[in-house]
Amino acid sequence: MKGIFITVEGGDGAGKSTQVSLIEKYLKDKGLSPLMIREPGGTSISEQIRSIILDKKNIEMANMTEVLLYAASRAQLVDEVIVPALQRGRIVVCDRFLDSSIAYQGFGRGISVKAIEDINSYATAGVSPDLTIYLDITPERSFRRKSLMNEEPDMIEAEKLEFHQNVYNGYKYVAEKYPERVFCVDAAQDVDKVFEDIKNRLDLIFNV
Amino acid sequence: MKGIFITVEGGDGAGKSTQVSLIEKYLKDKGLSPLMIREPGGTSISEQIRSIILDKKNIEMANMTEVLLYAASRAQLVDEVIVPALQRGRIVVCDRFLDSSIAYQGFGRGISVKAIEDINSYATAGVSPDLTIYLDITPERSFRRKSLMNEEPDMIEAEKLEFHQNVYNGYKYVAEKYPERVFCVDAAQDVDKVFEDIKNRLDLIFNV
Repeated sequence: MKGIFITVEGGDGAGKSTQVSLIEKYLKDKGLSPLMIREPGGTSISEQIRSIILDKKNIEMANMTEVLLYAASRAQLVDEVIVPALQRGRIVVCDRFLDSSIAYQGFGRGISVKAIEDINSYATAGVSPDLTIYLDITPERSFRRKSLMNEEPDMIEAEKLEFHQNVYNGYKYVAEKYPERVFCVDAAQDVDKVFEDIKNRLDLIFNV
Repeated sequence: MKGIFITVEGGDGAGKSTQVSLIEKYLKDKGLSPLMIREPGGTSISEQIRSIILDKKNIEMANMTEVLLYAASRAQLVDEVIVPALQRGRIVVCDRFLDSSIAYQGFGRGISVKAIEDINSYATAGVSPDLTIYLDITPERSFRRKSLMNEEPDMIEAEKLEFHQNVYNGYKYVAEKYPERVFCVDAAQDVDKVFEDIKNRLDLIFNV
């Protein structure tokens, strides 16, 4: 495949949307026409699946059902959008991909990581990012930054914090397992400094 | 688990609905209270997934998306309905289960059977039928019986016939692979004779 596949990952409050926009601008300023997509979603069928996953009425959803629905949504996105775009030589930037399932469903919800990796190896048909930009910031730090947490967390906040701590550990697992594709950025820095680090990494691909 | 899990399988036009009704009556006549369910469906979330799978507008659905959606629907049914019922000692009769995925998505649509078995080993959490009643009839035979096919099939009918021939081969694969649980019934016989064979098999479990 002739294109380049970039994913952007990170926990809640890591500043992902902002950096995705800056990446889009960077690529367009170079005269490129990147395809910007997000998960879950990106196709009609994936959006229908997304609405089942995110419907708050579906509180009885089993963890494994959630894993399989995310994988189904991803399989459709890969088949209908990502593979054809890469075959035509396009740059595809995806806000969240497989690593989010490992971090959130695996480490966050406690589903076996092997199960998620096995199921998703079929869903992605072996399509793997050329580069994953991981915005690295501890949940304590990002929660404080967003004023989502008081200095002394109450019980609900402590539970929420524990979940996000597990998600954070999931991203650390991914970064250690796939060092050749995962680029870790210190996302506790100022927005401009975070993007400067990302830009330096992108220059290695696009400034040639 | 204290209950008994029975699945009923067969190609289109094999007479499955009729036999499922007769099985229900047989069990009720014995004073039992079977839980009768069907796939895909059986829970609110599974029905939502079913409507995505069966929506004719979703013609662009990738084969792997379909496999994962059936598996997600099954995971929810297993978690929310089948396992709790079996734990309470109930008899559960399910119209189609995993074997339908192997026959239809695997052999019918040409998805790797290993993929379907791997994915569904997670979806079913290892829950396997104690008994599978397979209604064995060749597609030529059942098509003729239902007057769905002329004596000389035209091209569309021939294509349809080829698909159902592949599904039939899938059920043969399942029956050979799991002889300890799959009970094959000659479904080309009269309805009463088919049920007599099923009844003889059920008596081995329930006439004790």
